[in-house]
Amino acid sequence: MKRSERLVDMTKYLMERPHTLITLPFFAKRYGAAKSSISEDLAILKHTLANNQDGILETVAGAAGGVRYIPFLGKNHAEDYLSDLASRIEDPSRILAGGFVYLSDILGNTQDLRRIGELVATRYAYDDIDAVMTVETKGIALAQAVARYLDVPFVTARKRSKVTEGATVSVNYISSSLARVSKMELPTRALKKGAKVLIVDDFMKGGGTLTGMEELVKEFEGDVAGICVLCEADFDKEKLVKNYLSLVKISKIDTAKKLILAEPGNFLNETDFDRF
Amino acid sequence: MKRSERLVDMTKYLMERPHTLITLPFFAKRYGAAKSSISEDLAILKHTLANNQDGILETVAGAAGGVRYIPFLGKNHAEDYLSDLASRIEDPSRILAGGFVYLSDILGNTQDLRRIGELVATRYAYDDIDAVMTVETKGIALAQAVARYLDVPFVTARKRSKVTEGATVSVNYISSSLARVSKMELPTRALKKGAKVLIVDDFMKGGGTLTGMEELVKEFEGDVAGICVLCEADFDKEKLVKNYLSLVKISKIDTAKKLILAEPGNFLNETDFDRF
Repeated sequence: MKRSERLVDMTKYLMERPHTLITLPFFAKRYGAAKSSISEDLAILKHTLANNQDGILETVAGAAGGVRYIPFLGKNHAEDYLSDLASRIEDPSRILAGGFVYLSDILGNTQDLRRIGELVATRYAYDDIDAVMTVETKGIALAQAVARYLDVPFVTARKRSKVTEGATVSVNYISSSLARVSKMELPTRALKKGAKVLIVDDFMKGGGTLTGMEELVKEFEGDVAGICVLCEADFDKEKLVKNYLSLVKISKIDTAKKLILAEPGNFLNETDFDRF
Repeated sequence: MKRSERLVDMTKYLMERPHTLITLPFFAKRYGAAKSSISEDLAILKHTLANNQDGILETVAGAAGGVRYIPFLGKNHAEDYLSDLASRIEDPSRILAGGFVYLSDILGNTQDLRRIGELVATRYAYDDIDAVMTVETKGIALAQAVARYLDVPFVTARKRSKVTEGATVSVNYISSSLARVSKMELPTRALKKGAKVLIVDDFMKGGGTLTGMEELVKEFEGDVAGICVLCEADFDKEKLVKNYLSLVKISKIDTAKKLILAEPGNFLNETDFDRF
């Protein structure tokens, strides 16, 4: 196979398997090419990604070595996307009763989910994460997008028992928007004991739901590797969680004046983009 | 930029934007290259995908022309994957009370979702589809995976009202597993009037939930472009829907004997794979 064809296939193959180590002998066999040629191909791939600041090809040396494609976006890409997203969120027709914001169009748009997934995966690219966790319903799209770019499974806690998941572990938490004690649960087999879990959700007001997920992780004897939300309502009361990241911060909603103000959240400043 | 670098970037760019028309002048400008060089690049991309039977690069002629990357898998890939999936589903530890099957691990595995998404998108690649619809909770992962490869939005019907979605349209349907009338709803703004909708779900027993989604599509004056489920319980009663596709068919569950039998569903025979 010619270099040009190898490069097409190699790019596709690696992009479909983020964070997965692919050995040089594997590629050499797949293309019937010398390892030295494969190394040259990979060098081209690596600097093309680096030039565009939209991915890292990590070389792992040694006998068990190979390469790994790390989805990773440069700071410019992050700033551009989050500014655009924040301005789209400022559309007053998004305002719903109770200080909520309609985001289902964004959470159902696969191009937005790709961008959001790549961004969150950039932040946690070099952290040790076994699974992404969210709670039904709207966080699922986000969890799936992030998990895809980190190449880990994602699990969904439920607020109501379902017969189709078998035995579950359940916790109680204070739902701050409802000001009452709620329950959420996860199938026993969904998470390994001691797992390092990245918690994600679509919208954060007081943070009560996030504390529920923290509790669940504890019940599985796991560690919370991070908490990241798409949108944070910053005008709302004090938060029940600390050390969370938000992609977008909504600083004001005025239902009467039909006004909503949004800007990029603390995600931008809390992420180390200098890895290229 | 050299051809080798162009090919890497072009492959990535097109893969990230399935079904989207990209013009030759766009690529020519992006790479500072002649249109004739870009055409040669695209020819390499096209035959590499065709040789691997894992994608189609469609050329659109004329002034408004360009190329479009269509996620599309060959029949061999489909057979291999669905046989493997069916055999993994035959694991007796998946059997749950009530003839249900634990599938959350598969629906939370991003590599499975990629494969499933590509497969379903292969079947509907040349159909006219505006949106993918599912119902909470477990169908969401599937809807998102399929929508991603068809480049359309996905919408999630809910079984319970939520304050965070604004005005909704609701329908009643007979839930066959519960043998009672249930309700599901979709935000008014989630779907355009007259939309052509592909309905997907994770698991089908009697098909009652699917009829609910058909009703919802009707309420939006839309058309059902297709119905596709991941798993069909074939041993169960008569189905309430017709013309559905299933990726995997579960022909038997014996709780006492700890036995579950699964095989590829009618999807394989109902899909035209000869498009390369």
